[in-house]
Amino acid sequence: MTLLFSDADVAASLDAPVTVAAMREALLAAHAGRLVAPPRASAPLGGGRMMLTAGQLTGEWYGFRSYDTFGHPEGGQLVVLHDGRTGAVRAIAVGEELGSRRTGGLGGVAVDALARPDAATVGVVGSGRQAWTQVWAAAAVRPLREVTVHSRAAARREAFAARVRAELGVPARAVRSAREAVADRDVVVLATTATTPVLDAVDLAPGTHVNTVGFKQADRHEFGTDLLDVADLLVTDSPAQAAAYAPPMLAALPPYADRLRDLGAVLAGAVPGRTGADQISVFCSTGLAGTEVFLLDRLARVGAAVR
Amino acid sequence: MTLLFSDADVAASLDAPVTVAAMREALLAAHAGRLVAPPRASAPLGGGRMMLTAGQLTGEWYGFRSYDTFGHPEGGQLVVLHDGRTGAVRAIAVGEELGSRRTGGLGGVAVDALARPDAATVGVVGSGRQAWTQVWAAAAVRPLREVTVHSRAAARREAFAARVRAELGVPARAVRSAREAVADRDVVVLATTATTPVLDAVDLAPGTHVNTVGFKQADRHEFGTDLLDVADLLVTDSPAQAAAYAPPMLAALPPYADRLRDLGAVLAGAVPGRTGADQISVFCSTGLAGTEVFLLDRLARVGAAVR
Repeated sequence: MTLLFSDADVAASLDAPVTVAAMREALLAAHAGRLVAPPRASAPLGGGRMMLTAGQLTGEWYGFRSYDTFGHPEGGQLVVLHDGRTGAVRAIAVGEELGSRRTGGLGGVAVDALARPDAATVGVVGSGRQAWTQVWAAAAVRPLREVTVHSRAAARREAFAARVRAELGVPARAVRSAREAVADRDVVVLATTATTPVLDAVDLAPGTHVNTVGFKQADRHEFGTDLLDVADLLVTDSPAQAAAYAPPMLAALPPYADRLRDLGAVLAGAVPGRTGADQISVFCSTGLAGTEVFLLDRLARVGAAVR
Repeated sequence: MTLLFSDADVAASLDAPVTVAAMREALLAAHAGRLVAPPRASAPLGGGRMMLTAGQLTGEWYGFRSYDTFGHPEGGQLVVLHDGRTGAVRAIAVGEELGSRRTGGLGGVAVDALARPDAATVGVVGSGRQAWTQVWAAAAVRPLREVTVHSRAAARREAFAARVRAELGVPARAVRSAREAVADRDVVVLATTATTPVLDAVDLAPGTHVNTVGFKQADRHEFGTDLLDVADLLVTDSPAQAAAYAPPMLAALPPYADRLRDLGAVLAGAVPGRTGADQISVFCSTGLAGTEVFLLDRLARVGAAVR
């Protein structure tokens, strides 16, 4: 029987500790060559394209995420999980929740691996779905003392802060500028739709870890090269995808590309992570392909057990 | 809310008259340029490929079929329907039933358009799922007097004949050779997995209409060029797909390609169909892309009404 998960089902069954643990396993599996994902395939239709990102955990499962570029209000994404032995469709998730929890989970792994062990404050720029899952996942890997949040609309940043207090039980304040949001924070999250920098790197305290979720390509980026210049440590979840963007990610271009490390390799101990409390570390999130299906596999097992 | 249809749901909700009517509409929409489907996209995985065939009915919906080439026993196919205005995932069908009813429905349209008006007997070579839906659809467009069936395994051809009697209420006989199955028949169905011809064209009576569902390419084919040579009328549901096969369909190569007609154009009256009772007509089924999603749209409306 095929399990069908809506956004509400995903939200009910997939908590942050489970999601972060799954994404850690996925990154290690990718580093070991067991989780594989070819470049995305696409088919042109009138007004947009149908996109397919396939993935496979060798010997276990295969599947894909589909989405489109029409820009519709409900633009339904789909994640599909096939059993690797029988080919049967084990589970399908419809909506955005699985994908944003996946991205949040990867961010949580990055915070856990790269932020200082005593990190306890988070500053967020952005107040959307992606900003939320970053904080949701960060709270699962560090005991948080305070969250500050800025976004342009006052009502939205206030609502975000209220949600952090209510759902995560963490003190939170909405503030009037990005600068104020990131000042003296242990962890900073950039999760905006901005195409020009929202942050000055000089506003960051020494020792800060930054997760960037929004645009970060050469032609549009929510942060500038000043952030990459001050960073002691540049990490991404997929150097291959970072380089394959058109145009490429800023961090995948010279002079940064040589310093860009793979988060999976850091987790595996193959390359070093943070080596000092004053270092600034930056995680450039690309959304490692195959991780949505990886998370659906986890959800199918957790969710099926709940039913 | 997303509707999820299993093979059993499809079988319960999609009868032959509805299916044939939907496929007639789909062929006309394709002829009018409203139903569009780009070439299939694919992504390589270890041991196989993930395939995606997209389709769109302008202004109404878009979607895709996904399948893979691993050759697994349950090799789950998926058909997905998005609302053309909101992008929401309206329905998903998992399994093989929708696809084979789709192919059957196209065959039913071909029989209705190309067989003699008084056609009443059907001879079938093959006894699998595709052979079944061809007869199932033919029975919806002509009152059948008798079905004869041959396939190599005696038990399977006997079971097929019994199913025709039980489910379609049509007299049916299993016979020991393909020659016997097709002799003196008004309609012949070839639906085998054979890679070499199972039929001699000389065994066909004048006036026969033939639906071919199995291999029909230059390097493997369930019928030979003798069938194309005796045919007065060569028709396919997609001349473009027929030519794009690698290698191409026999009927899409010289000297036959110039005579190959589009079934949608015949339905629209843009090109003639059968013009005499003694003509032999041959329908080369390719499975017009986009028609699975078209049928899922129909099912979502019929099936939703039933619930």
